Amino acid sequence: MVTQSLSTPHKPAIAIIGAGSWATALVKILSEGAVDIRWWLRNQESLEHIRRYQRNPDYLSDVPINPEKVQLFADMKEAVQGAQYVIIAIPAAFVQDALSQLSAADFKDKVLVSAVKGIVPQKNWLITELLEYEYQVKPAHICVIAGPCHAEEVALEKQSYLTIASEDLAQAENFAQLIANRFIKAVPNQDVYGVEYSAVMKNIIALACGIAHGLNYGDNFQAVLVSNAMQEIRRFVETTYPCERDLYASAYLGDLLVTAYSQFSRNRTFGNMIGRGYTVKSAQMEMNMIAEGYYAVKSIYEINQKFGVDMPITKAVYQILYEKVTPGVAIGKLRWLLA
Amino acid sequence: MVTQSLSTPHKPAIAIIGAGSWATALVKILSEGAVDIRWWLRNQESLEHIRRYQRNPDYLSDVPINPEKVQLFADMKEAVQGAQYVIIAIPAAFVQDALSQLSAADFKDKVLVSAVKGIVPQKNWLITELLEYEYQVKPAHICVIAGPCHAEEVALEKQSYLTIASEDLAQAENFAQLIANRFIKAVPNQDVYGVEYSAVMKNIIALACGIAHGLNYGDNFQAVLVSNAMQEIRRFVETTYPCERDLYASAYLGDLLVTAYSQFSRNRTFGNMIGRGYTVKSAQMEMNMIAEGYYAVKSIYEINQKFGVDMPITKAVYQILYEKVTPGVAIGKLRWLLA
Repeated sequence: MVTQSLSTPHKPAIAIIGAGSWATALVKILSEGAVDIRWWLRNQESLEHIRRYQRNPDYLSDVPINPEKVQLFADMKEAVQGAQYVIIAIPAAFVQDALSQLSAADFKDKVLVSAVKGIVPQKNWLITELLEYEYQVKPAHICVIAGPCHAEEVALEKQSYLTIASEDLAQAENFAQLIANRFIKAVPNQDVYGVEYSAVMKNIIALACGIAHGLNYGDNFQAVLVSNAMQEIRRFVETTYPCERDLYASAYLGDLLVTAYSQFSRNRTFGNMIGRGYTVKSAQMEMNMIAEGYYAVKSIYEINQKFGVDMPITKAVYQILYEKVTPGVAIGKLRWLLA
Repeated sequence: MVTQSLSTPHKPAIAIIGAGSWATALVKILSEGAVDIRWWLRNQESLEHIRRYQRNPDYLSDVPINPEKVQLFADMKEAVQGAQYVIIAIPAAFVQDALSQLSAADFKDKVLVSAVKGIVPQKNWLITELLEYEYQVKPAHICVIAGPCHAEEVALEKQSYLTIASEDLAQAENFAQLIANRFIKAVPNQDVYGVEYSAVMKNIIALACGIAHGLNYGDNFQAVLVSNAMQEIRRFVETTYPCERDLYASAYLGDLLVTAYSQFSRNRTFGNMIGRGYTVKSAQMEMNMIAEGYYAVKSIYEINQKFGVDMPITKAVYQILYEKVTPGVAIGKLRWLLA
């Protein structure tokens, strides 16, 4: 299915689009295997720094970048051209813009791998939907990489698990084999939409956990919040994409846990500031970044207008962030809805 | 069903057997309602201290004990005699011994409420089974109180949720009404065995999380461990007591989360010491207490000999604690079994 002509069959070439911590972690993971990595970075200075010092100056800078495995590219088209696999690892909000320099022809016969955890704003598309609708990539040529996995622990080579989802199970298994190594176990999965939506929704829940924590709710409440969140995720994915799936699998429950219980989660931190009384604008300025859950909650809330799934947690977060409902009021109301 | 003659119908009398942090938290919770509390404590000095200073000197000593609501008893029989409800809140390992001063006649026509999270050692009985087998209490007269709930957060009046399980749903609803207050929501449930077994097994999982942490595994691994633990709990309760239940309810998933992710869990702390290389004996001496999961894993492992459910996490913990398998070896083997 995949053109093998550009490298030996035993050494596939993999393009990685993106320069953040997750992109850097994927470079590290894949460098363990027998692959050629073609890494595209937008920022020319970062690229030069990596070329000279074999470190990404901006993210996971303890991770050595092996120049024998990794070729650096300033030109995205060039990076993609030589690859059989293209991994997209940029924040959801910027994916559409970043890929605009490419066309459907650039992706022809390649396997596209989304490592993005978010939804394309305005369009309310999953990344796989963007690839299908705008680049005519066939579902069998699309994979999704999901957690549970903090990039920081990959840097430390802590045992981690990745989920590789594709409608074509053989495709998922192939890519899982490429990415598995001595500290990464990769588990294939066929439920692309369920895995993607769960990955998106966990950021909303992490936001909710942060807000509750900022309001001084404790661990007892958070345990109930996360249990109810799993029920909310189940209702949503069973309604939007009904299929046989086990939501206790690490891709769903595990991914939610690693985010909701992490002290380092940007979404949780952002939520915590909101709970403590920061405005959305001041929290964003203070953090100097935008938590993905901020966009995700708007998209999921809008998508759900069509489906009408009962989603009290998503609704509370939406009302706080977009309708100026006071956090104390929204969570105070939520607390008696949960059980 | 319950004799109301010993107090007004509007003010039922509730005996509480036990003096630990959970017993003290229950005294605090129930003191919010229109009930008479009959509190039995084994230790005469603690009892005198509470009488004089309205504080339990040993646990949650910030919590004021209201003498207008709470009568103290050194004689268990006397405490029980005047009550319609009897709450048992002592560690599982000591329940049989503590209750040996009572007979079936003492419990006649009363509702027995187990707040114990453990199994009677040697017998391998749940507390409800002990009450049925040794005291001929009818299932319809038995309730179980389950979490997710840290006693410490009850002391701080943080919003918490309790599960009240009874085979007789009306009974569960009655008691849930008695125990609910401005910071406690009580949710009735009919799955007594599932709730009890989950409460027991969560301590084994917290032990496993602690062991993994002591071995330097990270949050990514823990998320996978807990997801797999939910699958293991599901397999076990579905095999031993099949019934319609939603394991995403707070009584199951929430209770596991509040324990497995707590830095204050005795089971997690105990496991952490084992992971760091302490022997069972030295960890117990250092902690000056015994983590309930230590007994629970033996009981569950033995009970499962009959059922043969696939329980890799329980098995690993059992092997570490009872068969001298090195933690690094047992968890190292487990890490490739999980997915």
